Amino acid sequence: MPTADTRVRTDLVDEYLRVRSITEWLAEPLGAEDQTVQSMADVSPTKWHRAHVTWFFEAFVLVPYAPGYRAYDADFEYLFNSYYEAVGPRHPRAERGLVSRPSVGEIMAYRQVVDDAMVAFLDAGVAEEVAALVELGLHHEQQHQELLLMDIKHVLSCNPTRVAYRPPAIPAAPSTFAATPMRWADFDGGLVEIGDDGVGFAYDNEGPRHRVWLEPYRLADRLVTCGEWLEFMSDGGYERPELWLSDGWAAVQQHGWRAPLYWRRGDLDRGGIDSPWSRFGLTGPRPVDPAEPVVHVSHYEADAFATWAGARLPTEAEWEHGVVASGVGGDVSHRLAWHPRAAGASDSALRQVVGEVWQWTASPYVAYPGFRPAAGAIGEYNGKFMSNQMVLRGGACITPEGHTRATYRNFFPPGARWAFSGVRLAADR
Amino acid sequence: MPTADTRVRTDLVDEYLRVRSITEWLAEPLGAEDQTVQSMADVSPTKWHRAHVTWFFEAFVLVPYAPGYRAYDADFEYLFNSYYEAVGPRHPRAERGLVSRPSVGEIMAYRQVVDDAMVAFLDAGVAEEVAALVELGLHHEQQHQELLLMDIKHVLSCNPTRVAYRPPAIPAAPSTFAATPMRWADFDGGLVEIGDDGVGFAYDNEGPRHRVWLEPYRLADRLVTCGEWLEFMSDGGYERPELWLSDGWAAVQQHGWRAPLYWRRGDLDRGGIDSPWSRFGLTGPRPVDPAEPVVHVSHYEADAFATWAGARLPTEAEWEHGVVASGVGGDVSHRLAWHPRAAGASDSALRQVVGEVWQWTASPYVAYPGFRPAAGAIGEYNGKFMSNQMVLRGGACITPEGHTRATYRNFFPPGARWAFSGVRLAADR
Amino acid sequence: MPTADTRVRTDLVDEYLRVRSITEWLAEPLGAEDQTVQSMADVSPTKWHRAHVTWFFEAFVLVPYAPGYRAYDADFEYLFNSYYEAVGPRHPRAERGLVSRPSVGEIMAYRQVVDDAMVAFLDAGVAEEVAALVELGLHHEQQHQELLLMDIKHVLSCNPTRVAYRPPAIPAAPSTFAATPMRWADFDGGLVEIGDDGVGFAYDNEGPRHRVWLEPYRLADRLVTCGEWLEFMSDGGYERPELWLSDGWAAVQQHGWRAPLYWRRGDLDRGGIDSPWSRFGLTGPRPVDPAEPVVHVSHYEADAFATWAGARLPTEAEWEHGVVASGVGGDVSHRLAWHPRAAGASDSALRQVVGEVWQWTASPYVAYPGFRPAAGAIGEYNGKFMSNQMVLRGGACITPEGHTRATYRNFFPPGARWAFSGVRLAADR
Amino acid sequence: MPTADTRVRTDLVDEYLRVRSITEWLAEPLGAEDQTVQSMADVSPTKWHRAHVTWFFEAFVLVPYAPGYRAYDADFEYLFNSYYEAVGPRHPRAERGLVSRPSVGEIMAYRQVVDDAMVAFLDAGVAEEVAALVELGLHHEQQHQELLLMDIKHVLSCNPTRVAYRPPAIPAAPSTFAATPMRWADFDGGLVEIGDDGVGFAYDNEGPRHRVWLEPYRLADRLVTCGEWLEFMSDGGYERPELWLSDGWAAVQQHGWRAPLYWRRGDLDRGGIDSPWSRFGLTGPRPVDPAEPVVHVSHYEADAFATWAGARLPTEAEWEHGVVASGVGGDVSHRLAWHPRAAGASDSALRQVVGEVWQWTASPYVAYPGFRPAAGAIGEYNGKFMSNQMVLRGGACITPEGHTRATYRNFFPPGARWAFSGVRLAADR
Repeated sequence: MPTADTRVRTDLVDEYLRVRSITEWLAEPLGAEDQTVQSMADVSPTKWHRAHVTWFFEAFVLVPYAPGYRAYDADFEYLFNSYYEAVGPRHPRAERGLVSRPSVGEIMAYRQVVDDAMVAFLDAGVAEEVAALVELGLHHEQQHQELLLMDIKHVLSCNPTRVAYRPPAIPAAPSTFAATPMRWADFDGGLVEIGDDGVGFAYDNEGPRHRVWLEPYRLADRLVTCGEWLEFMSDGGYERPELWLSDGWAAVQQHGWRAPLYWRRGDLDRGGIDSPWSRFGLTGPRPVDPAEPVVHVSHYEADAFATWAGARLPTEAEWEHGVVASGVGGDVSHRLAWHPRAAGASDSALRQVVGEVWQWTASPYVAYPGFRPAAGAIGEYNGKFMSNQMVLRGGACITPEGHTRATYRNFFPPGARWAFSGVRLAADR
Repeated sequence: MPTADTRVRTDLVDEYLRVRSITEWLAEPLGAEDQTVQSMADVSPTKWHRAHVTWFFEAFVLVPYAPGYRAYDADFEYLFNSYYEAVGPRHPRAERGLVSRPSVGEIMAYRQVVDDAMVAFLDAGVAEEVAALVELGLHHEQQHQELLLMDIKHVLSCNPTRVAYRPPAIPAAPSTFAATPMRWADFDGGLVEIGDDGVGFAYDNEGPRHRVWLEPYRLADRLVTCGEWLEFMSDGGYERPELWLSDGWAAVQQHGWRAPLYWRRGDLDRGGIDSPWSRFGLTGPRPVDPAEPVVHVSHYEADAFATWAGARLPTEAEWEHGVVASGVGGDVSHRLAWHPRAAGASDSALRQVVGEVWQWTASPYVAYPGFRPAAGAIGEYNGKFMSNQMVLRGGACITPEGHTRATYRNFFPPGARWAFSGVRLAADR
Repeated sequence: MPTADTRVRTDLVDEYLRVRSITEWLAEPLGAEDQTVQSMADVSPTKWHRAHVTWFFEAFVLVPYAPGYRAYDADFEYLFNSYYEAVGPRHPRAERGLVSRPSVGEIMAYRQVVDDAMVAFLDAGVAEEVAALVELGLHHEQQHQELLLMDIKHVLSCNPTRVAYRPPAIPAAPSTFAATPMRWADFDGGLVEIGDDGVGFAYDNEGPRHRVWLEPYRLADRLVTCGEWLEFMSDGGYERPELWLSDGWAAVQQHGWRAPLYWRRGDLDRGGIDSPWSRFGLTGPRPVDPAEPVVHVSHYEADAFATWAGARLPTEAEWEHGVVASGVGGDVSHRLAWHPRAAGASDSALRQVVGEVWQWTASPYVAYPGFRPAAGAIGEYNGKFMSNQMVLRGGACITPEGHTRATYRNFFPPGARWAFSGVRLAADR
Repeated sequence: MPTADTRVRTDLVDEYLRVRSITEWLAEPLGAEDQTVQSMADVSPTKWHRAHVTWFFEAFVLVPYAPGYRAYDADFEYLFNSYYEAVGPRHPRAERGLVSRPSVGEIMAYRQVVDDAMVAFLDAGVAEEVAALVELGLHHEQQHQELLLMDIKHVLSCNPTRVAYRPPAIPAAPSTFAATPMRWADFDGGLVEIGDDGVGFAYDNEGPRHRVWLEPYRLADRLVTCGEWLEFMSDGGYERPELWLSDGWAAVQQHGWRAPLYWRRGDLDRGGIDSPWSRFGLTGPRPVDPAEPVVHVSHYEADAFATWAGARLPTEAEWEHGVVASGVGGDVSHRLAWHPRAAGASDSALRQVVGEVWQWTASPYVAYPGFRPAAGAIGEYNGKFMSNQMVLRGGACITPEGHTRATYRNFFPPGARWAFSGVRLAADR
């Protein structure tokens, strides 16, 4: 029975079941074989994602707070702890694809047991502190929904047959409009505030809200397109060291980059689009559409493109301030679509802010002034990754609802390409 | 209709169906997840084995000889060609575990189509030359049956839960006898003949039959046991460089070898056996039984053990001549058991010749005098591997019937440990 | 004869000869063998440094501007270009230690030829633009003087005999004072300006001068000492993942870090100092002195130490503003001493600002707002390294005069330890 | 004073001084920089060779047998022990090029001290057992004379300027004769004897003398020429996997082999020789001369060439028996020339047996029947390398006198190319 300190949160139960069911829906088209493969060290198998997000609720909510709950399987702690050093030893990340057991079916059974326990536990009412952990767990699971899609795209791309994850919801047709011209949106800058204001859910790394001085700047009103990227390539973009950061040029040499990830020359009917390049997507291979935003480029490539274009990448403060000042920020309904779309005409100062691709910024991922990680294992969520990563802002076509607020700080190493990452240009005024 | 040149070989159809069905039976206990994993570069996924042996019949029999047969899927040629350079490009070996499609179900369908075509084709009668290719294909599939078991053992050992492949056919009990004493069997040597005499099936590398001069020698009448291996370990076997070949000592340092592969300290009820070590087997983890033959040691370890024991490894000519001279050679019924057994008492000069473990010899794998590989792609079967490998003789508990003849030359790199490889000692007289 | 556009800069000739002669003096104690070795990819051989700084004058001053000057040796362009992609192909960095020719003697001859040509060229008067290149070349050579010392320290440390580079100028005695207590110096922050103001020489990356908002903060008045580092070690500093950035913890595991670079347990007479640790220095091995500043720690270690101490690292803006506000900044006479000294008593708000060790900041090395690299090959000097590096401020005991101004931005990857890098703590107020 | 057990061996003193002085003469053209560089892990610096062979006398003769002799420097044991595990820990092989001290001068002083002690010691008379160790030490030093030349050739080839080690003794002119035709020398084989007969010095691995059965065979009367190798290349030799061993083909892909080591396309005046290829030699770069024997090919290349030529490599028994039966074996005067020469006309059954290049055989390097390594550290000399290496027979233009007897077994891994290794063909009759 709820005590004075606890509260029955029926909304939390509903949200719990809603988020959990989306994960299952995402896994639906995937066979046991698809769900087992780890195609590179950064990728996790689908079945691992499904188990890991479940373990998060078990380890941080059920085991410490639910009376009488016993861990489902001692091995699961070892297998499905991602990186919480404080929790104990764990299975090496790069070997997740070697683990054939538990099977997909066994993981579904595990999810069911934890779901039943969670619903019963939440139905009995929980303290605010526990509700906050559940809420964190749901946001965590949503992040893994996006990772699951990024990862399975990479896995399926390794099949010589390049099979589709899912057919497109609507017939795949070339965009009916050419890319609309890019315009600059101007901002005065000055002493502005950015970061989480404490209203609504946010990760610890989004705060504290703080002041930043910005010189006058401008942001491109839309994303860089594939057509523009093809121009960059034609102009020797991948062969001219003067355009690149030193580490970026080394990556070009080492990996033989000549185009965005998942692009391949030829081998496709063109479907009416004038492109000798195809790109692999969650709905299968398609000709590169010049009007669509470019996606799956690294920070190094984004930076080189901006240099080539006579522009630069925005800082994360410029991005956030510009978006908020333009009234286009905050949360937007997500799409769970499978590929970014060309920009339509709009009166808005900034287009394609969220829902298409994450946008690389010029900002390394570091702590905001006054940042303090949470205590305990949960404190490992964000802070310890503040090294050798770059911030991305916005949100992609596969990003779940609630993860596209203006203060959200996504981050990846500058050489990563398997996130849905693209480019918005910026410039000094 | 059979022509003068062809012959209906009903025995060949029967043998075809028999061998093919054993492969299916071996895969039966394995889920789609188990069949997809590649746990190291040397290992192939179960589903790959099932498809590859099928592709062998398709590529070398059906496509060239069966009128009207069209390759089932153009991608399969790329995916399931193991190493036949002459056939065309192929999928990199180390990436077999990245391929989630075709699924296990799709591979079963492929097997069915090829089986139907093969039976129809064989029923119509085939020329001797084609029958020989089918026979080769069946022996090839049997080799992959053994590889499948070696590989899945490694895959399952990577699961922290160390699950069994199959329960033992008979209850797992400690051996009822201690290891019987080892005796030497003496041989005079002289100018002897070894190699395939052309009667019955043999691989090209087993011939030509040829003369070899042997000095007088002796062979141990049984295999080296786990108990003897534990003595070697207790006596600092893995810490004394003077016992090791230079490359072997480097491997000890690099891989941290301290015991045979699949051995682990502790963590098991002892089941009445006095051993602090457990070993993983196809029927799950079990205490190390001192009376059982040691298995899963590299050539380097076998050689170091022999040096420690004041003996040496036999040459392959010594092994073959000794076995034949003792009247214990030739083929023996296979066991498809899952682990080698302790030696029983016997009047035979040599015990445990086949059916327990492959026995490392002191002979590098090179061509016999006068050896000529077959013409065409089939010629790549054996000859091109005659470099940096050592010959093993005998046959293991998982080796199929027909693969344990006295002239059979198995081979692995000297550092390999995942084959069912053990040790029989030899000495000069 | 000088034209209206040119000017005889006798001061420039003097400065040229002064800087060049210091390089020679630094190489003096080193045999040809010492000058040839490259002990890791980051290190360059002494003779390479001596040739490369010479090539800089040849390639950027003499060849383009000195009438009739012909490049001394076509191979030298290939061998001694460090990283200027715009200039042409170059010898791989990691293979500098494979090049035995040109010999040390041949490089001395090359230096002489270039010096003669430079003096004659400067004596004839040069345009401002060329004088600026010469000035840049001298600052460049001074940076390599520091690199030469960092590098030769690493080279000599690889000799099992741990030979000294040079005897200390004054007898090596333990510090006569214990480390004085650390005090906090408080700063109000607010909207401050940092960066090069255009007066006097500065590298392009030090500007433009710009505004930054700082929250109130404090800086430690002295550097972290070896004694404090020993406490960190005793308290499990290198074994507690919760203190470390994720990449830092991975580095600890990978490299087996247990103490600063060049520290070794035992093997020394203690010389009156109570320490079981010795450290290698340019004057040879010595007991670790608890009062001395710690040096040769990576950014990861600095960050973990700060977390352990309940503090943090300063941002580069905090460091620069605090130093200038305290009146201790600007240039100070250099020492070309061989090891940092313990802090003496002082009335100054901040002690040990320059002349002991470079101080890691919390700031990734990125462009200041409005930064534009110089045109041409010279533009590769700084900008292209703005990725995966952290800023260090201050200046070390081996840093040449003129390289310790308050705006100077040194930078290294967060895992680098062979620079003379140490720690000054900061905190929020 | 000599006792009954000892004998003054003035011949031994003379031989000692003669061999030692040749080493010094070989190092003469090399500066301290040249003598310090290690250009790959297999290569040792010249100064290391000079010290290591000296240490051998110190460790195995002076320290155990010379009354009152004390080791010159405790560090030298650690630095200059090559691979004798029984002697104690040693410096990692791949880091020999990091050690700048002791300098070349210091090593010369070390040599002098040891030479003085050795001469005094030998002058006093030594027991047979000690004389045998001295003799072994001299043969050991001679082996290192050849290694020194192989190694410095590789070092100098890494200089972009490709400097000569020494000018040729006689002016470099193209061979005045085209390659004479290759003829087959036929041998009946049968039960033959090979191996050391105990008369004169031999390494332990050359015995025991033993019987081998040989089928009838033939040997090419001369070596494979560069002209023949160019035909192999023109015929796609490096692009046709069917010619190669599996490991060999992998090496071709991995290393990008397209010609023998030290060959380079173009960039030379042709000097009257019709070749677009140059090759680097100890006397500097020269056009490839079609009449000269090919040198610096791996076993893999030798084997592929033989396959292409419709022949094979000889076994070591065939080589030794053929050479002895032809009366061309035994020792021949060495040349210490710097490159192999074209075959002249001759009535001999076999030409170019020794003095040009080592000849790869088809025989892996394993123990002869009855082989026992010597006791103690000296026993590590040969036996422990009997794994993953192939035997070469003959002797090269840089091989010292006394190292070209018919029973001599040289050995290198099948992928090694920096030895002076070439090809003599064989075939079945």
